[in-house]
Amino acid sequence: MTPFAAQIDPRAHARAGHGAPTLVPTPLEERRRPVPIADDGTDRVRAAAWTVAVHEDITALLTDLDGGGAFVEEQWARDGGGGGVSRLMMEGMTFEKAGVNRSMVHGVLPPEALQRLGVAAVPGEVRFFASGVSVVVHPRSPRIPTVHLNVRFFELSDEDGHTLDRWFGGGTDLTPMYPQPEDAASFHRALADVCAPFGRALHPRFKAWCDDYFVNRHRTQERRGVGGIFYDHLRPHEFGPDRRSLHALAVAVGTSLRTTYAPIVEARRDAAWGDDERALQLERRGRYVEFNLLHDRGTLFGLQTSARTDSVLMSLPPQASWPRPGGHPAGSLGDRLTAMLAPRDWLAVDAVA
Amino acid sequence: MTPFAAQIDPRAHARAGHGAPTLVPTPLEERRRPVPIADDGTDRVRAAAWTVAVHEDITALLTDLDGGGAFVEEQWARDGGGGGVSRLMMEGMTFEKAGVNRSMVHGVLPPEALQRLGVAAVPGEVRFFASGVSVVVHPRSPRIPTVHLNVRFFELSDEDGHTLDRWFGGGTDLTPMYPQPEDAASFHRALADVCAPFGRALHPRFKAWCDDYFVNRHRTQERRGVGGIFYDHLRPHEFGPDRRSLHALAVAVGTSLRTTYAPIVEARRDAAWGDDERALQLERRGRYVEFNLLHDRGTLFGLQTSARTDSVLMSLPPQASWPRPGGHPAGSLGDRLTAMLAPRDWLAVDAVA
Repeated sequence: MTPFAAQIDPRAHARAGHGAPTLVPTPLEERRRPVPIADDGTDRVRAAAWTVAVHEDITALLTDLDGGGAFVEEQWARDGGGGGVSRLMMEGMTFEKAGVNRSMVHGVLPPEALQRLGVAAVPGEVRFFASGVSVVVHPRSPRIPTVHLNVRFFELSDEDGHTLDRWFGGGTDLTPMYPQPEDAASFHRALADVCAPFGRALHPRFKAWCDDYFVNRHRTQERRGVGGIFYDHLRPHEFGPDRRSLHALAVAVGTSLRTTYAPIVEARRDAAWGDDERALQLERRGRYVEFNLLHDRGTLFGLQTSARTDSVLMSLPPQASWPRPGGHPAGSLGDRLTAMLAPRDWLAVDAVA
Repeated sequence: MTPFAAQIDPRAHARAGHGAPTLVPTPLEERRRPVPIADDGTDRVRAAAWTVAVHEDITALLTDLDGGGAFVEEQWARDGGGGGVSRLMMEGMTFEKAGVNRSMVHGVLPPEALQRLGVAAVPGEVRFFASGVSVVVHPRSPRIPTVHLNVRFFELSDEDGHTLDRWFGGGTDLTPMYPQPEDAASFHRALADVCAPFGRALHPRFKAWCDDYFVNRHRTQERRGVGGIFYDHLRPHEFGPDRRSLHALAVAVGTSLRTTYAPIVEARRDAAWGDDERALQLERRGRYVEFNLLHDRGTLFGLQTSARTDSVLMSLPPQASWPRPGGHPAGSLGDRLTAMLAPRDWLAVDAVA
């Protein structure tokens, strides 16, 4: 843990007497009632702070884990407002490609994005502010799964600067390239621990949300991977009375790879693999590309708001393939891997030792 | 030329005294006036006939051109109505992957597709009929460009079977993986000849349409390739008095690879290439994937109407890569290739001997 992460560690937050914030589902009528939203900018400042801290924390973790490769950093400015810092490692020792990006962008929301976000008609332009971190790791070895993580804060305001809405989103999910169910079990177990301080209801809800989100709907509902957690459009008043709790959640999720992913990398680092395993990895990466370009909201939002295209598409694997279609023979690596993608209660499956 | 293609060759059609159909742009007011549409099914029958004939013609051409590989055929039925025949060659002598698909599908149009097609509100369900052929060839050698071709006929009807609208679409375009401007020039010149019997105005119009369509808008308007021709929503009454002319155009375009593409394959077949050329090819193929999944209407329509996913996605390359972003050094292969993608008058450039 970096000093910053420890400082606002949700467990420390709970221990300090704030109590574990509980998940209060808002009744439907209440959701439709307008909610008074403070315009004091506090959330923006806090989100900006953890965006930078989480970005640094993940960069440090992945650099250590790789054991030889280094990130190349590029800073960029967005024409309409804001910018970001993209860090890319290619051809590292362990990671074939790892992207760790942060961005803080603002400006006028393009009409297509407005429609996608389901924003009601507002006189004049709608302005947005978005701050967050996005990570995708494509390891060289097919025995090490691919991981994705994202935490973000979003705010909409009218032309006069009055806040119209604000919400948090995030999540992290694992995409195995080789059938090792223990990895999925260990990832989910560690994630449940990350979520625990925020109330018992949170992990099952976010786990199911993830299973519903990372779906290649054009491929008979095939999942991108074995899931993890996902949440979006979480508004402070829907979460609990303590507004800081959603910021603490962003930090908890944002620094979670240390306990969810790093142990898997260490455990699988020296596992043997050859051409068959590589071929299966490239095929699964093809499906990863399909999900990201056809279905992923974050990717489409990024491309629509003219953020930096190369940064938005850093999630794409370094290489991918589309081999002859058709199923894998029963009992083969590919068959066992595909079988793992059906959602299940991974907490009931034995984790890697 | 197959006997069928010769039989309804547009030049033969013109020679037979029908005259070269001319392109009559319809004034805007007239377009807005409702057009009486015959419900006799003639167009459907004719489209079904050329769909099969063009499919066979292209299969024969590519099998000959490959010089060793063979297509594997799969017939499929669509749940909502209709079906198709997918032919896929993988790891041929010349072609790493070539897909030649025909489909004839019909049924109820899904709401998303309705919206995409801009269909005005009609009481009850809207039914569609679509027939056509789609081809994508990904050669093994980076010295041979990738080619795409598609011809299609589309009809919408109301619940009582009355035709609401019908149109033709199609085109063919070239995507070089290596900077050989002569290939682009020769492709465009041969295409201009294919279009010539249909009137002088057609080729320039369809060429510009193609330049406007195959654009990776998220990549600062970078084109997918060097273009060719593209047309869509061409209604019989917008084209000319002879309804058969649009069918003849479908056949002319559908059988055009014999004169537009085959000579390039023959000319480049034995050209040398190595790792650098392969790396550039994989990078350009990554952009091909981006276009097809983010922007291509045909792909999105296919996935929305639950046609067979593997057939819709046969356009994706067998392998692709997303290397470190950033431009290519001035004068390098990649730089010269990227420079070729800017639209230009290829008829003014020297073709390959």
